[in-house]
Amino acid sequence: MKRIAIDMDEVISYFSAKCLELFNEEFQERYTDQHLQGKKLMELDARFEKKVDQYLANESFFLELEVIKDSQKVIKELSAYYEIYIVTAAMEFPASLAPKYRWLKKHFSFLNEKNFVFCGDKSIILADYLLDDTPSNLEAFQGKGILFTAPHNVNETGYTRVNNWKEVKAYFL
Amino acid sequence: MKRIAIDMDEVISYFSAKCLELFNEEFQERYTDQHLQGKKLMELDARFEKKVDQYLANESFFLELEVIKDSQKVIKELSAYYEIYIVTAAMEFPASLAPKYRWLKKHFSFLNEKNFVFCGDKSIILADYLLDDTPSNLEAFQGKGILFTAPHNVNETGYTRVNNWKEVKAYFL
Repeated sequence: MKRIAIDMDEVISYFSAKCLELFNEEFQERYTDQHLQGKKLMELDARFEKKVDQYLANESFFLELEVIKDSQKVIKELSAYYEIYIVTAAMEFPASLAPKYRWLKKHFSFLNEKNFVFCGDKSIILADYLLDDTPSNLEAFQGKGILFTAPHNVNETGYTRVNNWKEVKAYFL
Repeated sequence: MKRIAIDMDEVISYFSAKCLELFNEEFQERYTDQHLQGKKLMELDARFEKKVDQYLANESFFLELEVIKDSQKVIKELSAYYEIYIVTAAMEFPASLAPKYRWLKKHFSFLNEKNFVFCGDKSIILADYLLDDTPSNLEAFQGKGILFTAPHNVNETGYTRVNNWKEVKAYFL
């Protein structure tokens, strides 16, 4: 069985959407995904730089993330044909370790926790495919990298791109 | 640079020694490493089965582990010639995630946290070497596995064995 490593933030969980929501609430702004096209949060508004660290230090942040549309259904289908690993960069935000684990057990309870990997640098991952929204992760990865579309990466070229979980399914099945 | 993945429990932290200590205290026993030769804790005394889960559920358990003799010094020396990753199976005991991270930052502060990996199954690790006390981890690993002697594995054959960190240094440098 070939092995697919799947990132969490922006691939199975709506990470930046939650940041926008908290920020809009605090500063009475009306930022949406449309404002984020091709930009990182800090490029949209410099106040995000301090705020994001603050949001992420709160354990409830990761627990409350919404699940990306169709990801549960498609990953369950892919599980019949591929080994699925969830591989997330968690070491920069140690407060995320426990909530990320609990979030996965809650929303992807059909996956075995032995297939969860919390790491820093994704060059350590041995898999056939990595599905990730961050080009530098795909760059470090030794297998075939696939870019999952997120607002910040819409202008990236040079990677096989999938725009949503329906396209992930079409690619792999 | 070649890459060495290094396990935590029984390789850089005295895991079973702490279990024996807590157990002896609770049950007025006098078990030592000598009683554990070639045995798992449960084989030494069936009461360990329930007790170990209980000890490990307590966050302070992992925080209080002693550092294995010479491991800090030798890993620091190896860092000049190899990429060092700390790779630990943490997913069976989610309560260990945060304390394992804090323990590493405290005792191995010279390592970058991007090189910490908390996983389940070590077949996901891409490295040249894995230094581990558990034969099944070495079995799953795709590179060269090296068995670090721990009381429970003294009768294992079929792996390159190192008995202590002086021998690790001699092997790699």
